[in-house]
Amino acid sequence: MTVGTGLWLNTLRAYSWVRMPPPYLGLDLGGSGTRAALVGEDGRLLARGVGPTGLTGGGAAGRRHLARALNATLAAIAQLVGDQSCSVFAGARGLSVPGRRESLMLELSTRFPNADVHESNDAVIALWGALAGREGVAVLSGSGSIALARSDDGREGRAGGWGYLLGDEGSGYWLGREALAAYLRALEGREAAGALAELVASEINTRSVPETIAWLYAGDQQVVRVAALAPLVTQAAARGDLVAVSTMRRTGQALADLAAAAARQVWPAVLPEGLLVACCGGVWSAGDTLAAPFASALAERLPGARCTLAALSPVGGALLLAMGADQHPIAPGVLENLREARL
Amino acid sequence: MTVGTGLWLNTLRAYSWVRMPPPYLGLDLGGSGTRAALVGEDGRLLARGVGPTGLTGGGAAGRRHLARALNATLAAIAQLVGDQSCSVFAGARGLSVPGRRESLMLELSTRFPNADVHESNDAVIALWGALAGREGVAVLSGSGSIALARSDDGREGRAGGWGYLLGDEGSGYWLGREALAAYLRALEGREAAGALAELVASEINTRSVPETIAWLYAGDQQVVRVAALAPLVTQAAARGDLVAVSTMRRTGQALADLAAAAARQVWPAVLPEGLLVACCGGVWSAGDTLAAPFASALAERLPGARCTLAALSPVGGALLLAMGADQHPIAPGVLENLREARL
Repeated sequence: MTVGTGLWLNTLRAYSWVRMPPPYLGLDLGGSGTRAALVGEDGRLLARGVGPTGLTGGGAAGRRHLARALNATLAAIAQLVGDQSCSVFAGARGLSVPGRRESLMLELSTRFPNADVHESNDAVIALWGALAGREGVAVLSGSGSIALARSDDGREGRAGGWGYLLGDEGSGYWLGREALAAYLRALEGREAAGALAELVASEINTRSVPETIAWLYAGDQQVVRVAALAPLVTQAAARGDLVAVSTMRRTGQALADLAAAAARQVWPAVLPEGLLVACCGGVWSAGDTLAAPFASALAERLPGARCTLAALSPVGGALLLAMGADQHPIAPGVLENLREARL
Repeated sequence: MTVGTGLWLNTLRAYSWVRMPPPYLGLDLGGSGTRAALVGEDGRLLARGVGPTGLTGGGAAGRRHLARALNATLAAIAQLVGDQSCSVFAGARGLSVPGRRESLMLELSTRFPNADVHESNDAVIALWGALAGREGVAVLSGSGSIALARSDDGREGRAGGWGYLLGDEGSGYWLGREALAAYLRALEGREAAGALAELVASEINTRSVPETIAWLYAGDQQVVRVAALAPLVTQAAARGDLVAVSTMRRTGQALADLAAAAARQVWPAVLPEGLLVACCGGVWSAGDTLAAPFASALAERLPGARCTLAALSPVGGALLLAMGADQHPIAPGVLENLREARL
C-alpha cells in the first residue's frame, strides 16, 4: 500500500511540475545532521529530508561520508526534481576543510544536473533564517558560538566562531567544559560539591579526577560529548547552584559581547532604531536563566536593540538565499508559508 | 681516535664495575623529549642520554616509536650496564594511554635484563626532583599545569593536570591561548591592538580572523604550537601591555590555586612551618612577571609557605626514586653530586 501511495504522490507531483516554476532547495549541513527542504516559488513545502552529518574530515573518505549523508537526506527530493532546473543553496560547516567545498559542489551537481548551486558557511544560512532576511544580528550558540551582523545595504560583521580550542565562550561546548571543571574542582576539594558537580557525577559516572580526565580524553567526539553536558548547567542554575548561576550569567555576557562586536563592525557609530538581535542554536533552550542575563548585558552594549528568537531555521535561511533574498525582497506570503512549514 | 677513547672508557668503567654496587638509572619520558642519567650509589654521574620523545599514541606504532626514542637515548647507557643488576625508575607522560605502561616496561626490561624497573607518571618524578625528596608542594607549569604535594609520612595531594581541553589554567598552553584570543579580539574590533596582539600577529603571520583560526586548526600538534606562543605574553607584559599583565597575574593566581588545593589535601588543618613550594617547568622562565603575582597569591592561600625553584630536574627525581628515596633517607652527599651533575 505504501508503495502504491508513494508512486501516486510522485506521479501527481511530477504532473504538477510541468506547469510549476523551478523549485528551490535549501540545505543545512551541520555537525550533528543534514537537513533539506524543497519549496515552490510561493514558499510552500514540496518535500523535506533529514539525514546524518556528512561532515567528518576531508579527502576521499570525507567525500564518501558526504555522499552517504546526501543520499539519505536527498533521495526523495532528488527524485522529485529530476533534471528540472532548480535553485540550490547549501550552508555547510567548516568549508575551509580542504576539499570540502569542491566535494559538496560536485555531489550536489551530480544529483541536480540542471540546478544553479551555491554554497556558504553554515552560520550565513542561520543568519538569514534567524532574521528572515531582515538586517540585524544573529547570535548562534550551539556546540560552538558566533555572531553575524548584516545591514540592508550589504555590510557584514562577524565575531567569535573561534572553535573549541579557543573556548568558544558562551557555546554549549564551553558550558559543558565549565560543568566538568566545576566537578573537578569539587573532587580536588577546591569547592564544595553543589548541584552542578552532583549532576555531572551522575551523568558521566566517574568518582575521581583521573577517571574524569580519562572519560574526557578517551575516544574521539570530545566536542560533542562535552557540549552534551551543557543542559546540566541550566538544571543546576534552576536549583540555585551558585557556580551554575554565575556560569549562565557569564554565558549571557559572552554572547552579548559577540553580538555587540559583530554589530559595531557594521554600525560603528549609530545603531539602527530597534536593531534586531535574533538568538538561535540549542543553547538558547536554557530559557530565562540565559535570556535574562543576555538581555541585560545586551542593553548595556547595544542600547535599544530588540532580542527575538530565530524567525526561521538555517534551512529556511538557505531557502531565502536560494530565492535570491540577497538580491531582491522576498514576498511576505513566501515567509508565511516557510514559517507555516516550520522551516 | 674517538672510537679508541670510547672503548678505553668503556673498559675502564666495566672494570670498576666489578667492585661497584649496582648503578641507578633515572628516565624522564616527556612530550618534547626523553632524558636519562645513570649514577653510582654516591650519586656521581656515570652516563647520560637525550633523545626525541617516545610518547606519541599507543598500539604497535606507539611501541615502535617508543623503541626508537629509547634506542637513541639509552644506547651508551645500556652498553655500560650490560647484564649487571641495576635499579631503574622511569617517569612517563600519559601512562593511562592504553598499552603505554606495558610497552615501556617491556622495552626497559629488554634493555636491562637484570634490572629492577619501576614506573610512574612524569609529574611524580618532577615532584621528587623539585623538592629533592623533601616534603612540600611542586607546581609544574610547562605545556600543561599540575600541582603535587607530599608529606614525609607519605600522604599525597594533586590538583590540576586536566589537559588542554579543560584549559590547564596557568600552563604554557593556556598562556598561548590567551595570547591568540587577545589577538582575535583585536581583529574583531573588541579591543585596541596592544603589544600582545602585535607580537602574535608578527609571530604567526596572519592578518584576519579566518586566517588565524585556520592557522590554529590546520595540521596537528595544536597544543605544542599554542604553548609556543606563551613567551609572547611575558614579553608584552614587560612592555606594559595591560592584557598581558592581567594574564600573567591570573596565571600566578591559577598556579597558586593549584598549589593550595594540593597542599590542603595533605595538610587540611595546620600547614608545616615554612612549607616548601617548588616551581618547575618552562613557564617559570617568565621570571618576575609571573613570580611576583604567584608569590603574593600564594601568601594569601598558604601563609608562611616558601617558594623555591626546583632543586633537581625530573631525571634527578627519577634517580632519587630509583635509589629508594620513598623508603629511606638519601645521604646528603648523593644530593650534592646529583646537583653538581646538573641533574
